[in-house]
Amino acid sequence: MSYQEQYDYFRLAAEEALRGAVPADVPEPLRSAMNYSLLAGGKRLRPVLLLAAYNLQAADITPALPFAAALEMVHTYSLIHDDLPAMDNDDLRRGKPTCHKVYGEGMAVLAGDGLLSLAFETMAQSGHPRALAALRELALRCGTRGMVAGQCADLRAEETGGDADLLHYIHRHKTADLLTAPVVMGLTLAGAEDNRISAGREYGQNLGVAFQIIDDILDVTGNEIQLGKHIGKDAQENKCTWVSVYGLEKARKDAAEYTGRAVAALDIWGEKAIFLKTLAQHMLVRVQ
Amino acid sequence: MSYQEQYDYFRLAAEEALRGAVPADVPEPLRSAMNYSLLAGGKRLRPVLLLAAYNLQAADITPALPFAAALEMVHTYSLIHDDLPAMDNDDLRRGKPTCHKVYGEGMAVLAGDGLLSLAFETMAQSGHPRALAALRELALRCGTRGMVAGQCADLRAEETGGDADLLHYIHRHKTADLLTAPVVMGLTLAGAEDNRISAGREYGQNLGVAFQIIDDILDVTGNEIQLGKHIGKDAQENKCTWVSVYGLEKARKDAAEYTGRAVAALDIWGEKAIFLKTLAQHMLVRVQ
Repeated sequence: MSYQEQYDYFRLAAEEALRGAVPADVPEPLRSAMNYSLLAGGKRLRPVLLLAAYNLQAADITPALPFAAALEMVHTYSLIHDDLPAMDNDDLRRGKPTCHKVYGEGMAVLAGDGLLSLAFETMAQSGHPRALAALRELALRCGTRGMVAGQCADLRAEETGGDADLLHYIHRHKTADLLTAPVVMGLTLAGAEDNRISAGREYGQNLGVAFQIIDDILDVTGNEIQLGKHIGKDAQENKCTWVSVYGLEKARKDAAEYTGRAVAALDIWGEKAIFLKTLAQHMLVRVQ
Repeated sequence: MSYQEQYDYFRLAAEEALRGAVPADVPEPLRSAMNYSLLAGGKRLRPVLLLAAYNLQAADITPALPFAAALEMVHTYSLIHDDLPAMDNDDLRRGKPTCHKVYGEGMAVLAGDGLLSLAFETMAQSGHPRALAALRELALRCGTRGMVAGQCADLRAEETGGDADLLHYIHRHKTADLLTAPVVMGLTLAGAEDNRISAGREYGQNLGVAFQIIDDILDVTGNEIQLGKHIGKDAQENKCTWVSVYGLEKARKDAAEYTGRAVAALDIWGEKAIFLKTLAQHMLVRVQ
């Protein structure tokens, strides 16, 4: 399989798991609001990372699917809440009006709350023998010292302007933590040894920072239609980004350096890690 | 111990667990916003129910404390989000300005998200051998077919006016599910047999509906200072309540009937259940 075929194989498996993920007896319009954002497409990067990491150790990815779905639920909840007027106030996401634009703010708050709850419910109901360890990893990475901490720092930086320390904190927690969790969860579920889980964590953290630097660059240099969201918003809102703190040239250089570190962390798997290595390098190509 | 001494014993144990519950390395002002709402006092009814149910089966309540704390986190998150301008738009809670009034709307959204995540993190980190089963119960009761479903129905009823069917749905899910979960979780953690867990569920569901009927009555007849929140808001906002649908007289009668069913469900424990029986009856006294 080519890299792209392999990506699509993981992505489509995740899409399939997501399609039936919101139970039929969730009341309307909550169910529609959740599915509106959850099934809006997107790269499904976090589920793909989980399934690919799992696949490093185990051939059949089926037991990992509930966790791949849970990750995308957590990611989607964070986007819905982040887009609210009280937060980033975005009206476009993945090329469509944001959840609160369609369903109203109250229902968007509930759709986010519902997706976060359903993520934990889905993992707890999976019956996987290592469910609790994987669930714990996600709770830690998405919570008050992970993603939510990063969003708090991001809000604060809008007021203070931010500096290099705050920038690194934001990128590590707001973005990298939720790209590290999939790799660690995938390896944990597959029963990988501790040194392999550490190597996966190293990959995820570096990939995550590279991903956010690239996102910062694309907000300056990107194409609104290709990205499916408004660009130039970071500068407009005085956001603390890699470009605003270090400038475009250093941002490109750092993106390459973090990507290199991510790729190197996977050497422990040799040839088997070619997909995850290529994934990191593909991201980088968009800004070079 | 008198009923009140027993209540305070459980309540103070929960307070103690909550005091250190938000980790020191959660960034400001997120940590303060979470603690502001979490440590605002209140009856701690959900933790007390969990500890009392656990105590029906086991003498030492220490292993149940992380779950008692998690329950109060979930309850507090739901209050913070429910008070937001996009939801109930309340500016007073437990006699203090609501979280978004003090910390702003964006931080209040994050404080709620943080508390929900921390609840699952706390349970997953507890090390309790039955942690996953208890966590699963809470995820089901607080989520998209539990509390969040009830809040969705509540929002919808404000538009449509609501009817008896919707009223029962709202009371069961918005309120009773998060009073049932503590009892089931406490018994599950203590290793109770299935028929006892079923009896506990029966108690929690009936207690929960009685609790919400009483709350509806107090919004009409209560004292603002004693309740620590504005009253008369239900009628003002066209809320679907037991009083608006059935009138005050039937509401009082039904509160007594649900309380009676809750009390009867505990007969399986005989004298040992006196505290939980008295708890149900004490609630009722406030409106009779």
